[in-house]
Amino acid sequence: MDLIIDVGNTRAKAAVFEKDSLKEVVVFQKEEIISETKKILKKNKIRHSIISAVATLSSEKLEKLHELLDLIELNHSTNVPFNNNYQTPTTLGVDRIALAAYGVSQFPERNVLIIDAGTCITFDFVNKGTYLGGAISPGLKMRYKSLNNYTSKLPLLETKEPSSIIGNNTNNSIHSGVVYGIVNEIDGVINQYKTKYQDLTVVLTGGDTNFLAKQLKNHIFANPNLVLEGLHKILIYNRADD
Amino acid sequence: MDLIIDVGNTRAKAAVFEKDSLKEVVVFQKEEIISETKKILKKNKIRHSIISAVATLSSEKLEKLHELLDLIELNHSTNVPFNNNYQTPTTLGVDRIALAAYGVSQFPERNVLIIDAGTCITFDFVNKGTYLGGAISPGLKMRYKSLNNYTSKLPLLETKEPSSIIGNNTNNSIHSGVVYGIVNEIDGVINQYKTKYQDLTVVLTGGDTNFLAKQLKNHIFANPNLVLEGLHKILIYNRADD
Repeated sequence: MDLIIDVGNTRAKAAVFEKDSLKEVVVFQKEEIISETKKILKKNKIRHSIISAVATLSSEKLEKLHELLDLIELNHSTNVPFNNNYQTPTTLGVDRIALAAYGVSQFPERNVLIIDAGTCITFDFVNKGTYLGGAISPGLKMRYKSLNNYTSKLPLLETKEPSSIIGNNTNNSIHSGVVYGIVNEIDGVINQYKTKYQDLTVVLTGGDTNFLAKQLKNHIFANPNLVLEGLHKILIYNRADD
Repeated sequence: MDLIIDVGNTRAKAAVFEKDSLKEVVVFQKEEIISETKKILKKNKIRHSIISAVATLSSEKLEKLHELLDLIELNHSTNVPFNNNYQTPTTLGVDRIALAAYGVSQFPERNVLIIDAGTCITFDFVNKGTYLGGAISPGLKMRYKSLNNYTSKLPLLETKEPSSIIGNNTNNSIHSGVVYGIVNEIDGVINQYKTKYQDLTVVLTGGDTNFLAKQLKNHIFANPNLVLEGLHKILIYNRADD
């Protein structure tokens, strides 16, 4: 079995893979990473593992993890299963690297657009094995927060599906603007890619996958855990090099 | 001649109308409102005026303006030339009231969608003389700011037209995400309205009008000064009541 650890700004996710299938995902606070890893090791026979540390983990914690695990640290010099045509590969976020690895491994002969709806919405495009780049825009919660933070009168709202495109009060106007804004943005960007690239496969992932997937007009594959799947593809690719 | 004053959070705009046409727009810091008004009064024969104070002006300044001008203060009890079906009319921003007044006066028998691309992007829909509501989403600069402010690694960029939908480095990814995000959002929302309402007239206004207008697919009327035009329509409507 393989262990995949994805460290975010405050929380971390650990995923156990048995061959190609994701068996279990555990979410915990970043500080608990050592105790959580030990728990997983007690229950599962982990052979290989990889960690993606978007937010930097303390060096003590990383050292401790290396003692516990046969661990690959994903960074910009890690071998990946795709050609990277990004102009500034060292500034490409590790999440986006993992997603590109997933796209290439899962759909090797296709044009794949991967949309990650999390803190930010990222678009990543893989053109038959070559990563070309994409886009970054504000995520769902970020839009709600910014409307409140950068204006004097608008309230901070929780995500809610609008009942109509025409918001008939301030709250409904905000829900319509944020949610339909994102839905139209995603459908519109997909259509822009479709006019340029035939055989486009579109994949949606990230924390807001389930909320957004049902509202999109375009046909997409939805799976909230593709960063973990992509990290697993990179792990497999590097093990094959051994 | 009529004088229209639109006070924003930091800056204010004053516009002189001769009959139905906008003669001049002056932009100045809010603090300079008295001296700027005096300058305008020296050069022009102002008979009637209206002020919209989104950010509250000090009571001394307002009093002083009332001494200088025959002044209507736009607020939620001002008579307006449309039926307001908004559930919470007292929370409807004065800019949106002015834009609805413009839509109704300019296109009385039509369905009018007015899009204001400023700090926020607001959508306002007038259904043959009745204001129904709309949407509020983050504006162009707000999206750039939020990507920098709410993440640890993304830079703060100035607005720039993307050269491609596929950003090939971090900066180009942000430009693509923010600009095409908004363009697709606006085109998508227009299309949603079009499927529900025939004879839709779409109008784009606000500080980012010129930057955005050329990138939209839908046919729109673009005019950056529609809040001023709308305030003038409200002034005319109230003078007629005298």
